[in-house]
Amino acid sequence: MIVDMRKGATPEEIDGVVERARSLGLDIQLNLGTDKTIVAILGSNTGQLPTDIFAVLPGVENVARIMKPYKLASREFKAEDSIVSINGIEIGGKRIVVMAGPCAVESEEQFMKAARTVKSSGACIVRGGAFKPRTSPFSFQGLGKAGLELLVRARERFSIPVVTEVVDTHDVSQVSKYADILQVGARNMQNFTLLTEIGKSKCPVLLKRGLSATITEWLTAADYLLAEGNSQVILCERGIRTFEDSARFSLDVCSIPVVKKFSHLPLIVDPSHAAGHYSLVPAIAKAAVAAGADGLLIEVHPNPKEALVDGLQSLTPSDFARLMKELRRIAKAVGRYI
Amino acid sequence: MIVDMRKGATPEEIDGVVERARSLGLDIQLNLGTDKTIVAILGSNTGQLPTDIFAVLPGVENVARIMKPYKLASREFKAEDSIVSINGIEIGGKRIVVMAGPCAVESEEQFMKAARTVKSSGACIVRGGAFKPRTSPFSFQGLGKAGLELLVRARERFSIPVVTEVVDTHDVSQVSKYADILQVGARNMQNFTLLTEIGKSKCPVLLKRGLSATITEWLTAADYLLAEGNSQVILCERGIRTFEDSARFSLDVCSIPVVKKFSHLPLIVDPSHAAGHYSLVPAIAKAAVAAGADGLLIEVHPNPKEALVDGLQSLTPSDFARLMKELRRIAKAVGRYI
Amino acid sequence: MIVDMRKGATPEEIDGVVERARSLGLDIQLNLGTDKTIVAILGSNTGQLPTDIFAVLPGVENVARIMKPYKLASREFKAEDSIVSINGIEIGGKRIVVMAGPCAVESEEQFMKAARTVKSSGACIVRGGAFKPRTSPFSFQGLGKAGLELLVRARERFSIPVVTEVVDTHDVSQVSKYADILQVGARNMQNFTLLTEIGKSKCPVLLKRGLSATITEWLTAADYLLAEGNSQVILCERGIRTFEDSARFSLDVCSIPVVKKFSHLPLIVDPSHAAGHYSLVPAIAKAAVAAGADGLLIEVHPNPKEALVDGLQSLTPSDFARLMKELRRIAKAVGRYI
Amino acid sequence: MIVDMRKGATPEEIDGVVERARSLGLDIQLNLGTDKTIVAILGSNTGQLPTDIFAVLPGVENVARIMKPYKLASREFKAEDSIVSINGIEIGGKRIVVMAGPCAVESEEQFMKAARTVKSSGACIVRGGAFKPRTSPFSFQGLGKAGLELLVRARERFSIPVVTEVVDTHDVSQVSKYADILQVGARNMQNFTLLTEIGKSKCPVLLKRGLSATITEWLTAADYLLAEGNSQVILCERGIRTFEDSARFSLDVCSIPVVKKFSHLPLIVDPSHAAGHYSLVPAIAKAAVAAGADGLLIEVHPNPKEALVDGLQSLTPSDFARLMKELRRIAKAVGRYI
Repeated sequence: MIVDMRKGATPEEIDGVVERARSLGLDIQLNLGTDKTIVAILGSNTGQLPTDIFAVLPGVENVARIMKPYKLASREFKAEDSIVSINGIEIGGKRIVVMAGPCAVESEEQFMKAARTVKSSGACIVRGGAFKPRTSPFSFQGLGKAGLELLVRARERFSIPVVTEVVDTHDVSQVSKYADILQVGARNMQNFTLLTEIGKSKCPVLLKRGLSATITEWLTAADYLLAEGNSQVILCERGIRTFEDSARFSLDVCSIPVVKKFSHLPLIVDPSHAAGHYSLVPAIAKAAVAAGADGLLIEVHPNPKEALVDGLQSLTPSDFARLMKELRRIAKAVGRYI
Repeated sequence: MIVDMRKGATPEEIDGVVERARSLGLDIQLNLGTDKTIVAILGSNTGQLPTDIFAVLPGVENVARIMKPYKLASREFKAEDSIVSINGIEIGGKRIVVMAGPCAVESEEQFMKAARTVKSSGACIVRGGAFKPRTSPFSFQGLGKAGLELLVRARERFSIPVVTEVVDTHDVSQVSKYADILQVGARNMQNFTLLTEIGKSKCPVLLKRGLSATITEWLTAADYLLAEGNSQVILCERGIRTFEDSARFSLDVCSIPVVKKFSHLPLIVDPSHAAGHYSLVPAIAKAAVAAGADGLLIEVHPNPKEALVDGLQSLTPSDFARLMKELRRIAKAVGRYI
Repeated sequence: MIVDMRKGATPEEIDGVVERARSLGLDIQLNLGTDKTIVAILGSNTGQLPTDIFAVLPGVENVARIMKPYKLASREFKAEDSIVSINGIEIGGKRIVVMAGPCAVESEEQFMKAARTVKSSGACIVRGGAFKPRTSPFSFQGLGKAGLELLVRARERFSIPVVTEVVDTHDVSQVSKYADILQVGARNMQNFTLLTEIGKSKCPVLLKRGLSATITEWLTAADYLLAEGNSQVILCERGIRTFEDSARFSLDVCSIPVVKKFSHLPLIVDPSHAAGHYSLVPAIAKAAVAAGADGLLIEVHPNPKEALVDGLQSLTPSDFARLMKELRRIAKAVGRYI
Repeated sequence: MIVDMRKGATPEEIDGVVERARSLGLDIQLNLGTDKTIVAILGSNTGQLPTDIFAVLPGVENVARIMKPYKLASREFKAEDSIVSINGIEIGGKRIVVMAGPCAVESEEQFMKAARTVKSSGACIVRGGAFKPRTSPFSFQGLGKAGLELLVRARERFSIPVVTEVVDTHDVSQVSKYADILQVGARNMQNFTLLTEIGKSKCPVLLKRGLSATITEWLTAADYLLAEGNSQVILCERGIRTFEDSARFSLDVCSIPVVKKFSHLPLIVDPSHAAGHYSLVPAIAKAAVAAGADGLLIEVHPNPKEALVDGLQSLTPSDFARLMKELRRIAKAVGRYI
């Protein structure tokens, strides 16, 4: 950490910072500038210390971190790319892994149709929500346990792994029996009790970025999962909230190279929630693959007009099939395949 | 809802929208402009319908809401101001209610000191966290049940109600035995299972605004609590995330008149989390009272330099005493008192 | 426009809205809902009227636009894609047009080297700033007229068109003698006197998106140019300001399909200013091409370490050559070429 | 500046940074941590150097500023509050200075009425725009020179200074003959040629914050004015662009204590442009005074329903008179007067 003293800070104030650092077992180095004094606080664990413990001291103007607040998710901790393997499907390797399916499991007929169609177009994991967190209490909240059972039926019938969201700490053990990957939704990215429980479950997990979370906060949330010994963590960019309202969220495409630079974890992109409208999904799905994403999470519904949730951002099976062809060409252009 | 058809939409496409509306029991009225057709969909429950069910139909360009998505929290539903009463302390009435105390309950000595000092300066509710959601898994996570017991001890010793955060659905019944007001933190504003559980508890609740939630989403989250029959809902503005980084968050002071215009619920402001730095707290606390807030939630620590959590944004007891004097003058200037 | 009356609005208030619309020569249609009255205001020029003229009337709750505030830039005005042709190089056609060069013209040696190297790698337009708007008055402000002369020398020597920024209304006629394309920087997107002057000049223009401009505002700014009879307008997405600070700006990749949906104008992307760091440029340049951009504007410097401006976001000639190879593969994958 | 080397940076890379610093005449101090090396670069002018010159060197991970990029606007440069005096009216002193009037000068009758009414309610400076930068080319653009002449007529008739916007560099000398204060609009905050010209004019200037400018960028823009020797600079907060859309912009009330902490310049607040709706103006005007603003800039129109520009955010004369009474009470509560 770099502690920047106010201009005119007294020797006693500078000593106060030095003392506090030493009391925590940290080394320090003083930089006496002509205008200001800077105290550099050294030690490999300073990333885990709150900056407040120095910022609150008299005479301190600002405290800046050098070490990042996350550790286990960082490339400094693990240099080579991590691969999460689900029944032999490797996420984070050369293959671009496409996960697709409806937002919510609505009925047996709907979900089996969806699973068949996405698999036949080349998706290798099927998605479907059984528990739906909805912004309005008057909206459809998902089929719950009956939905989980339909997930399992599709998994067995089509030999395809399933990913589904878990929204309550106390559902983790139940849902992890049904699902191959647990999804943590954007609104739960900093639900730390949920993260800790999923961390303990050791079940593969898809951690969506919070809609106003910085990349640093996102990787720090991943540390919650990793700290419990769960190394099967997949990150998922799904758009951030900005002033622009022509799409539901603004896909932060630059988060792809940033995450790849600072973290070893695999990263996929959800173009459907970012766009909010089916007509915008193909362009940003292609952008994500070109920018280096390891996979995609795409909403596909057999009949979007009748969807109970998020029909507007769902592709029809034929639009999805066409997109998959285009994505294969992009994947090849960046030296990968689908 | 207003359904705006694409220029050149066919009669069949327009009929499709009309049919869908009628199948839902809604009235419609057609507006045939020279360039575009607009279908107005009428009915008092259209606020609860997702716009997607029309937006997904062929020929539709855009769908705009007329009715708001929230209902129970709206002034249209209840015209007069709601008052939440805690042991005779009315929140939403003429008195500005100041809640103060440390971010976290750290020890008996710390918390008793804090409770005594804030009460003596005029705060009428004491705050203190027993369960702390922290962005890093390596930070202090709160005293848990031992913290709750210290809350109760302070409540009895100083005859002052207490407010504390609940972070897990399954802790609601336990925490509501100890606390007078349950706090829902910003990161849990859309944790709908938690909201539903607190709604059922009927315990007074402080609903913080999510750090990137619109006011509409915030009032819709309040509907989750109200829909379960819990009418003791207090809203709390605590700053939103923007590009400006000189304070931790940007206090949305304009949310005060906006909430007062559209909702009957009482509204308080947390200047401490918004500011992130003790030196900025007094100015925005005074602004909040001047703008019409019904109360404040302020962090005060007997010794901020030694605080385990958020010391930088905590006032010292003497700074708090001085601020309370200034706030009393502002309250008087707007026809209220503290 | 849709005028949404307050619940309980009086007949007089509704009449007030109707009268005002009729006084402006507009048709209206009343929608009398059970809860609310809605007045639909019809006419093809309502996009150019400010919503305020109705919003300010008594009894009005909200006014929403149906017609967009821009007209000439819209696809409704002109359905087929526009192509801007510069010395036979078509922007907006099948070819992806890459413009590259240093942020600022610094010296003859630097600029000739840059022009030669970007042309040899396949760029077909060279960029270089002679007038530099800088956030600090203590920074290098550009070579001015001497810079313009170096641009012309490079243009002649390497037979390559040049693009350069104009920052002052009164420089337009001078700069348009030297440059093939005038660039309007992000901070000038709503400098309407400058836009009007460039509109009159009829010189091809590159209109950068303002760093906090919505797409609607950007297309409305383009209308300023088009309204003066200048149809040679190229749009340039260069990142928007959000809370995320790992890159200098957040490239709004979704603006590409949105602009293509609503406008006929060609659109290029500047990955350099968005990223702010050379290591992030290639990923987002590839994303832009995959998402449908018609071209790129990339900063390349013969020796970024010695650059006077924006060295950190400049590619070296060899990094640029490598990127161009990768971009060619992506262009081919989306049915285009470089 | 603090240069943070990548983990494993070589001695040659560290030397490269040291050499570059020394070549610029700067002192350095090395901090060799267990994990990373940090190079502290010392010298009082480092605030004016771009961080890029070090960030671009091999082995560098990050560069953080210690010195702020602005200098003349900083409290470190001038500790005591600056006061701008306009015909004996002091801005930045104990009096809260209220500037009021219509957005645009529309006609003699309208403007004289407005000037008379705001003066009689206690405003001591009158505002009115003659040149209007409008987002749409189809909107009213102001009366131009005829508007300036009406400003002068009102100034003489009512003995009240006037403030008006200047939008073109080449109008500065003309407008400064008519106006007592030149206003730089939010969209021109970084129009550096305009700032330089106004700086040279030595005319008192009101510098509005750009709608997506950080406070640091705003104070750096003020340095452009101050660097030309114009010390009569008044800052004006007018709301920033965020995701919240219930008001036109989000008033950043916390910018008030932040500016007061870091700068000596007087600061006023424009609640009208922030709110965008007359019903929200009083609450945030009161908040601004309570938080420590030195004045207000409020839109008042004799008949908002007929206003050509921004009628929705204009107060009527009677609403303004009522607000002034409330503001006087708040001013007194914070030890000031109006």
